[in-house]
This record gives sequence, structure tokens and C-alpha cells, in this order.
Amino acid sequence: MNNPAGSREVDQALRTRARDVMPNGMYGHLSVRRLPPEYPQFYDHGAGARVWDVDGNEYVDLMCGFGPNILGYRNSIVENAASVQRERGDTLSGPGECMVELAELFVSSVSHAHWAMFAKNGTDATSLCLSIARATTGRSAVVMDNGAYHGWAGWSNLSPVGVSPQERVNVFRYVYNDLPSVELAFQEAGPENVAAVFVSPFRHNAGSDQEMVTGEFARGLRELCDRFGAALVMDEVRAGFRLHHGGSWEPLGVEPDLSAWSKAIGNGYPIGATLGSKKFLDGAERIFATGSFWFQAVPMAAAIATIQTLQAENGIDAMVRAGNRLREGIDRQSKEYGVEVRQSGPVQIPNLSFAGDVEFERALAFCGAAARNGVILHPAHNWFLCAAHTDEDIDRALEATEDAFRTVRAKFGGT
Amino acid sequence: MNNPAGSREVDQALRTRARDVMPNGMYGHLSVRRLPPEYPQFYDHGAGARVWDVDGNEYVDLMCGFGPNILGYRNSIVENAASVQRERGDTLSGPGECMVELAELFVSSVSHAHWAMFAKNGTDATSLCLSIARATTGRSAVVMDNGAYHGWAGWSNLSPVGVSPQERVNVFRYVYNDLPSVELAFQEAGPENVAAVFVSPFRHNAGSDQEMVTGEFARGLRELCDRFGAALVMDEVRAGFRLHHGGSWEPLGVEPDLSAWSKAIGNGYPIGATLGSKKFLDGAERIFATGSFWFQAVPMAAAIATIQTLQAENGIDAMVRAGNRLREGIDRQSKEYGVEVRQSGPVQIPNLSFAGDVEFERALAFCGAAARNGVILHPAHNWFLCAAHTDEDIDRALEATEDAFRTVRAKFGGT
Repeated sequence: MNNPAGSREVDQALRTRARDVMPNGMYGHLSVRRLPPEYPQFYDHGAGARVWDVDGNEYVDLMCGFGPNILGYRNSIVENAASVQRERGDTLSGPGECMVELAELFVSSVSHAHWAMFAKNGTDATSLCLSIARATTGRSAVVMDNGAYHGWAGWSNLSPVGVSPQERVNVFRYVYNDLPSVELAFQEAGPENVAAVFVSPFRHNAGSDQEMVTGEFARGLRELCDRFGAALVMDEVRAGFRLHHGGSWEPLGVEPDLSAWSKAIGNGYPIGATLGSKKFLDGAERIFATGSFWFQAVPMAAAIATIQTLQAENGIDAMVRAGNRLREGIDRQSKEYGVEVRQSGPVQIPNLSFAGDVEFERALAFCGAAARNGVILHPAHNWFLCAAHTDEDIDRALEATEDAFRTVRAKFGGT
Repeated sequence: MNNPAGSREVDQALRTRARDVMPNGMYGHLSVRRLPPEYPQFYDHGAGARVWDVDGNEYVDLMCGFGPNILGYRNSIVENAASVQRERGDTLSGPGECMVELAELFVSSVSHAHWAMFAKNGTDATSLCLSIARATTGRSAVVMDNGAYHGWAGWSNLSPVGVSPQERVNVFRYVYNDLPSVELAFQEAGPENVAAVFVSPFRHNAGSDQEMVTGEFARGLRELCDRFGAALVMDEVRAGFRLHHGGSWEPLGVEPDLSAWSKAIGNGYPIGATLGSKKFLDGAERIFATGSFWFQAVPMAAAIATIQTLQAENGIDAMVRAGNRLREGIDRQSKEYGVEVRQSGPVQIPNLSFAGDVEFERALAFCGAAARNGVILHPAHNWFLCAAHTDEDIDRALEATEDAFRTVRAKFGGT
């Protein structure tokens, strides 16, 4: 398992070639250029909760493709369902029967949903929600958390580079779990101009500790949206089906009007979904939105198998069990090495930060050492458990984090 | 082949279920609710250039999934390449070696390209071009054809429903092949504000005859962009790799700065690409854009196999041969039945319209009869040939169009 002398030769050669033909040699959330040098950029294969880089080094993968891997890489039930559909067809000149089946499955699984649309990206799903909210309400303004990522489109991109200022004039920001800040955002926008309020099931902004939603905040958002006639839009892209087999706020009894899903719903097959209530069906029927691959049958067959398997095998329980084992182990190691950490968010979508680590130096050293020892984590983004993480996977991950704590202690001292 | 009494029972039952769980029972470009009742909404399988609907009726498919099918459904070379990659992994926690190989293949195939980025949708690819042009130029305005479709995003959607007015203030329109109208659009925007001029390789706006680009227009656009410091952006999403193995304007000797690709590049596997020149690398390196499935290895392996096979097997020649056979056959039938038609655009991406058919009544009757007789066409959108269309496929399609001409003649008389 330990890869202290793991070769990086193939990875380095590919990085050199990549720099000649791609911006920065790699772009987006999977670029490792801001991560420690121990991270591989290129992977060869995966199985269950393990990945192997192009030099043959093996890792326990606690990122799960940043969410899509929820049942385990190459899960046989999902792969078989995809294979059966693929033998018939995928991107044909019209959708297959499985599109209706998947829409029915979503509508029966997620309590607020009366209808479903499918797309490819999480950004497609959130942008569909905004368009539908605008079409139904006839308004333009959108209210959202001040650090939340709802996709790379102009209205939601956290970076202003390449975005026209006009795309942002309708965006107003609030602080998560702070209801007065939402009311203030409504006032800034003019309450009669607000088409939608976006919210994540819990606060999972990159670079900060996570925060569970309070029931008061959830109910307050619902009440504000009802009072002013705005759509409450739940961004389930990151958390969907990892917290609950329906919508993430169903245990709270608070229903959104629209919700955006992607990542885990096809266990790695590319699909996004927008779900909505009866009230917003009219807007959904009047907008024009489409994509060449939105009607692909294989990812829909994979999604049906993923959702059914997750329910049948109690996948969420498995993720919670593995997540608790990881959280407890890290907590134990933190105390043992005298390095203070904060673990936040649901155990199945965990986040780790270090006390006093403003520049992420400890997090980077920790994750670099973990990668060197055969586990893939992230220093500034939440991690993801999947239902394939076994006790053995977690114990191996904890061997790696033990060395990582030792490294942080040696380099930065105790806290 | 003829399906005059073809059952529609399974399709009708699925449509009824779909209306309960999807907006309008189906949305986007694959919805058949505005097409004649003979069209199937749901398909069961496909092979080569044929598709079968859920009731078992067989069709020669002249829509090719609206473009993605370029080598034939379930092409064995592409499927084998995808299968080999799938056995290793698809959506892992990082890209695979094939991402570098695909970027290298694009850069070596398309003359203007110095770098490549990959995404999922055509809309991703065109929106990336706009963001990169804005980042590089520091400007916001975009100049484009007055009826061209460059995706469903707010800046490019042809429908205003669900789009905020502010998303459109930077859009200025020209008439294809009319250089003075482009100069006027520059003046309206203020030449110093124009980030990008979008253009399609030929005019292929829905609902109108197609028009090939003139060399004068192509060179004039390049000159205007150079004079005012704007990016010339080629939208290859619909035409890419059907006209030329490189960029569509390479035979004209006019190179864009940025180009957007999707549809055919993975023979049905979901992938989009943005290519750019050295000058626009800086903007590409500064924007933030990403997607959970943008780094999927299987569609990249499929794209490599698709592009290589298309070149090795002279796929474009095969499409041109089939397209010429179709165009000549339709021309002959048009004369024989005394029904005047216009066939426009490249033979491998053909468009058919009827003289005096302002309300598309003849086109709808024609395509309904064709569908009833086992061929899938479209009354208001161009069609697509693929390299798998055999002479026999085209001759069978022409049997169907003969009956369709007979139907139009009987219903509307000669022209």
C-alpha cells in the first residue's frame, strides 16, 4: 500500500506533453497544479474505492471523482445495466424508454418533484433551474450564498474572469444560515424582482469548513420565497443521494420548488437532472433548452440502476459507516499527534481543516504525505465516501493519514 | 421496409406516461410534438444508418441523432476503443492518458489549433469560446448571425423566455454573407467593445434554406476581427468533421482564433471541444471552467477512434457519395411529380424545402409520409448523412420519398 518510492515517470512525461496542448497543462477542478507534487495528474484505472495512477501506484480514493463514484468504480450492477442498453443504442435520433422510467423514478423518489428534465452537467441542471424560475416568475434576480459554487456559467462562476459585468447585475448574496442576510439580499434586489433563491443542502463552499443547515434557516428560506413569490432552488449536485434517498431536506420537512442534480446519479455516467413542482411546470414547458447528448440512453439506464441499487443495498448507511470510521480515526490521530483539526459536514461528505492554517500550508503538507502513502484527499475541498469503501479501505487510508499527521507535526509543531 | 400499418401502441403508451413526468412529455430538439403523428417519439435500438422504434418499426435514419452518428450507430472500431477504456475506468478522480492523446490529435488535425479543452455539450464549447474571448480581450460584446443557433445559454438562446434582458445587451447581429451588416454590428457595439464574432462554417439556421459561405465573406470577417482586435470564433458543433478532416474553412485558407466542436466527434459519446490559437491561450489559462464529467476517459477514447477511423476510411467521401445519391434522387422525383423543391447546403448535411411552403405544410406532409414509409427526415432542420449510409440505404430512403412526393402532389398540387 505505501508508495514512498512510487515512480512518477509516466505521469511527468504526460504532464510535459499536456503542457504543449492544453491550457496550463490541465484545467478545472481536476488540475493538480496547485496541489503537492506527490499527486498524480493522470490515472490509469479504478475499481471499487481504489484508483491506480499511470505509474501503477495504488490509492484509496477518498475523492470519488469529486462525487460521481457513489457505488464504487465499475460497479457490476450499473455496468451491466449500461451494457444492456449500449447493445441497443445510446445517442439515437430520439430518446429511449429508459428516459420515461428514469423520470418516473425521480418523481417517485424525491418528494417535491412532479416532473424531471435531464441534461449532462451540473451547470446545465442549475442553469435550467434559473431559466425556469425566470420564465415562471417573469423576473431576473437571483439570491445565493456568498461563496457557493453553482456551476461555471456566467451568472454563477465564482471567478469574474471572462464573464461580462451584465451577467452579474442580477446576483445578490447572502450568508448561509443567516436569515437576516437573505432578507437584506431580497431588499437589495427589490423583493418583486427575485426569481430564485439558490441554496445547497448544507454549506460546502470550497476553502472553508462545512456547516449543516439549521431547521430555522431552511424554514425561513421557504417562508421568504413564499412571501415574495420566488422559487426556492436546491442545488443537490454535490450532496444529492449521499444524505437521503429523496431530497436532502426531506428529513427537515422543507421542500424546494426546483432542484438540480448531477454527479452521483449515474455512478460516473454523465447525466444531470432538474426536478420541479407543479407550479413551475409552466416555465419548464415554455423555455427552450436542449443538448446533443441530453437524451443519451446509456447514462439513463445507468442512473436507474444506480438509484435502485443505492436504495436496495442501503448505500447511504454504508457511506455513513465508512465515514464515521474515518472521522473517528482522524480525530484519534489528531489528538495523538497534538495537531488540532476541524472535521465538518456529514461524515459521508467530510471536510478537514487545520487550526491556524490560513494559507492551507498544513493541509497541503498533510495531503501531500497522504498521497505519497497511497490515499487521495483534498486540502481545500470536501471529500466523498462511496458505498464501496470497506473497513479495510478506511484502515489503509488511516495508515496514510497517520504518516500525514506525523509530517504536519514535524513541520509545523503541535497546536 | 414499408411500414404503412406499423403499430404505434408502445410509443403512444410511453408518450402518455411521459406527459405525467416531463415538461410537454418531451423537451428540446428531439421532441416530436410539432412533427406529424407518424413520427415515433421513442426508439429501441440502432445499427449503422438504421434505427428501430419501440414498436419494432425500422427506419433509414437521415437525422443521425441530429449529427452525432457519423460512422454509423454501434460502429465496432469506436465501440471496441470505448470498451477497452471502460474496463479501466471512465470518471475517475483525474483524467487518463487519452486526454493528452486526444488534445494532440485535435492540435495536429485542425490547423488553427494550438491547444484544446474538452467539455460535454456544444453549448459548453461555444460558451467556453465566448468566455476565453472575453478574458483575452477584456471586452464583452459578441457579434453573431441573426438566426444562428450557438447553444441554449442565455447569451445565445434564440428564445427570450427564461433569459434575463441583461444577458442579451452585449449581443449584436449580422446577416450571413453580408459583410456590411457585420461592419454595422461592429459600429452598433462600438468596435472597441467587441470580444468575439461567431460564425458557422455555412449558414444552417433552422427553418431556412442553407447557404454556403463566400470566400469574400470569410476573408472579410477575418480582416474585420484583425482590424478591431476581436476573436473570430467558428462554431463547428454541427458541421465539424463532416466537411473536412480539419477545420471547415481550411480549404478557404481562413483560420478562426477559437472553434467549438461537439456532436460527431465521439460518434455519439458525449464530448465537446474548444480549440484555440496561441494568442488566446492566455485567456483560456485564466478563466475557471469545469464539469464533473468533462474529464471522462471513455468518450475521449471514443473520439480518438472516431477521428482516426473517419480519416483512415475516408468517411467524408462516403458521406458525400451517399449525399449526392440522395440529392440526385430527390431532384429526379421532384421533377417527376412536378413539386418544386430547393436542396441547399453540402450534400452530406442537406436541407430540403418546398416552393411557396411558408407554413411548412408541404414539408410536414412530406416528412410524415416519409416516416410512415420508413425514413426519418426533418421538415425544418437540416439532415445528416453518415459514413454508414450505403447505396441500399439511400435507395430505400428514396422509395419512401417517392411516396412522400406523391402525397404532397395529391394534397397541394404541382408547383
